[in-house]
Amino acid sequence: MNIVDIIAKKRDGLELTTEEISYFVKGYTNKEIPDYQASALCMAIFFKSMTDREIADLTFSMLHSGDVIDLTSIEGIKVDKHSTGGVGDKTTLVVGPIVAACDTKLAKMSGRGLGHTGGTLDKLESIDGFSINVESDDFIKQVNEVGISVIGQTANLVPADKLLYSLRDVTGTVASIPLIASSIMSKKLASGADKIVLDVKCGNGAFMETIDDAKELANKMVAIGKLLNRETVAFITNMNQPLGLAVGNSIEVIEAIDTLNGNGPEDFTSLCVDLATEMICLAREDVDLAKAKKLVLESIDNKSALNKLVDLIDRQGGNKEFITNPDLFKQADEIIEVKALEAGYVKALDALMIGEAAMHLGAGRKVKTDAVDHSVGIILNKKISDYIEIDDVIAYVHTNKAANETIELIRKAYTLTSDEVKKPEMVYHIVR
Amino acid sequence: MNIVDIIAKKRDGLELTTEEISYFVKGYTNKEIPDYQASALCMAIFFKSMTDREIADLTFSMLHSGDVIDLTSIEGIKVDKHSTGGVGDKTTLVVGPIVAACDTKLAKMSGRGLGHTGGTLDKLESIDGFSINVESDDFIKQVNEVGISVIGQTANLVPADKLLYSLRDVTGTVASIPLIASSIMSKKLASGADKIVLDVKCGNGAFMETIDDAKELANKMVAIGKLLNRETVAFITNMNQPLGLAVGNSIEVIEAIDTLNGNGPEDFTSLCVDLATEMICLAREDVDLAKAKKLVLESIDNKSALNKLVDLIDRQGGNKEFITNPDLFKQADEIIEVKALEAGYVKALDALMIGEAAMHLGAGRKVKTDAVDHSVGIILNKKISDYIEIDDVIAYVHTNKAANETIELIRKAYTLTSDEVKKPEMVYHIVR
Repeated sequence: MNIVDIIAKKRDGLELTTEEISYFVKGYTNKEIPDYQASALCMAIFFKSMTDREIADLTFSMLHSGDVIDLTSIEGIKVDKHSTGGVGDKTTLVVGPIVAACDTKLAKMSGRGLGHTGGTLDKLESIDGFSINVESDDFIKQVNEVGISVIGQTANLVPADKLLYSLRDVTGTVASIPLIASSIMSKKLASGADKIVLDVKCGNGAFMETIDDAKELANKMVAIGKLLNRETVAFITNMNQPLGLAVGNSIEVIEAIDTLNGNGPEDFTSLCVDLATEMICLAREDVDLAKAKKLVLESIDNKSALNKLVDLIDRQGGNKEFITNPDLFKQADEIIEVKALEAGYVKALDALMIGEAAMHLGAGRKVKTDAVDHSVGIILNKKISDYIEIDDVIAYVHTNKAANETIELIRKAYTLTSDEVKKPEMVYHIVR
Repeated sequence: MNIVDIIAKKRDGLELTTEEISYFVKGYTNKEIPDYQASALCMAIFFKSMTDREIADLTFSMLHSGDVIDLTSIEGIKVDKHSTGGVGDKTTLVVGPIVAACDTKLAKMSGRGLGHTGGTLDKLESIDGFSINVESDDFIKQVNEVGISVIGQTANLVPADKLLYSLRDVTGTVASIPLIASSIMSKKLASGADKIVLDVKCGNGAFMETIDDAKELANKMVAIGKLLNRETVAFITNMNQPLGLAVGNSIEVIEAIDTLNGNGPEDFTSLCVDLATEMICLAREDVDLAKAKKLVLESIDNKSALNKLVDLIDRQGGNKEFITNPDLFKQADEIIEVKALEAGYVKALDALMIGEAAMHLGAGRKVKTDAVDHSVGIILNKKISDYIEIDDVIAYVHTNKAANETIELIRKAYTLTSDEVKKPEMVYHIVR
């Protein structure tokens, strides 16, 4: 087998064999195939795409390029959830405790990543004492006993993806659906879950900007799951404005707590309920969607989900008082009210700009070595379809430094109109 | 400027600016842009092509990536000729002396390259004493006095092409017309000629297999020449069988001598006459095509062209007796007659297989360090449209070793038919 022939074959639009794909992934991971050949192949894949079978083979080879987590010592079906990433996305903090309260196990390993705000790990670390470093045995034990654990990745998961993603990032080959699908799915499958619920974000604050692209990606990932015997359901959800009201770290945890108390923002609550319902229905043979939804709503009403969050925090060394008394979270030095300069209905609220506004405050990471400021962020007071009067507060900026850029970006993110605006739908489509 | 943006722009089918192309070529030549980004860009160019303006800019940037030969101290218009390469192509050895005999100057620098037989330099080196190493001043002086010199490349011409070609070779991006056109034209233009005649070979023994591809390449190169103010004419010629009868090194020189004596094979002679006519017509304002052709035929009749070959050999240290007495060329140990096993008209004669057959004898180079055996090769006795009886000699193999593979390949190269076959045309098309 010869990598030049493999590149030429894909370039000419032919289907690669399982062996050819495995040869490429192994060769690239162990550095026998150089970057310049891998990038040429990625560009050929960008143009000629891949069949579902090829993407499944690519996913399989990538997931076996490093460690594969074995969760078999956790009883029952393990479900995982993955979001393709958006602004204000704190769903794991709500969905995780809900499913754990409904006898569905979530053994979650997260990476840090880069972004406008920190990831789930950073958000949890705004709670004093919370540790993401848990020994493998304790992790398994905790999931068996509590139903949930969220820890940092220590194993060498999918090194092929790490290499390939860095390469794609600098060679104009990120935006390829087969490459995105195999990157996400290889990581999810290597993490050991039996079933997977994907939240494919769609809109100006997401990687997929159109519903068509999001659907294609969702279809591919569900097909990969089927071909590799891990049932996968993909939601396509609205990311044309931030999710919920809080965009930051500790303020997102507080919003998650509010939501588990039944007081969350409507859009965010409804998404969490839908995702958790799907996860429970996948994991438990004894419930259908209607029954699962009933269990979810009950777990919020009776605080059993909130109590799971308390247990999760407690078991991983965090101060559980933070959950019952959110005033304990470290506050930012200043909270600035951003007031409206004009009146109208909110027609659009650019999620990406709000994300960048939060980034300016120090809520996220541009490079891996950046420190995240847990206390800062933005709390939106108006979202799409709301009416704004002049001088209404549209957002609160929690900041530890001058925030002129942030305020300007927030104002720019709002587009107003004199006509009434419909509330946007949260879930566009579900691929099962 | 940012190379990732440039890659993405081309990937999305947009036209690159002059500055972007120059940024890429400069950055790649001085190693600031790594191979993996260059190969991704080449693959994007493969799929999205380039406008004539972009190809001209790429050619211009490449030609200025290293030394540029200054031929201004040679009086008059300097014409160069370039063939895209085929089997049995010894045209320079005939066309060069003809144009020199017709007051048209050819200052030719050749590279060695790889191939089924040696290049022009190797062929000339089958003459005892001939040297391809000529000092720059002597080169200019010789062209001014004799009208022709053929030497090895010493200057650092088009380093960008050397780098890019090696990269394309291992990344499935060779077969891109804009990249082929800029590669050829940058080298020709850096060699300093004022006007250029290109011989784009087309057929199973050539890089371009279809007339459409060959026409596209020819059109692009003529367009580049126009945009960069170097008049260029491109011939598209038949390479569906070897050119002439001899495929080797010394035996090709002998065929060239025969041709200058008026006794060359018909197809080869006609091509040389046409190419030389075009070159003279380009160089001399005082002649049109008809007049130029008359001069060419006269130069063969009156042996003035043959005498130019004698002068060329003599001036560069070679034994000029070889030209008048070709028996002086070193002979191969053995000449094997290859006889026909069946009868019929020759319908096809696979040029590539004949090339490979010659390669097996040691006539060419697979890697740069291979030595070329000047004495070996194949002399075809039958070509397309000829009738063959069983036991007729179809070819003579000049060899210094066992030649079973060669003989088998030669037999395989012939396809016979019971129906009469038309003589193939030599020149398909001329782009001016």
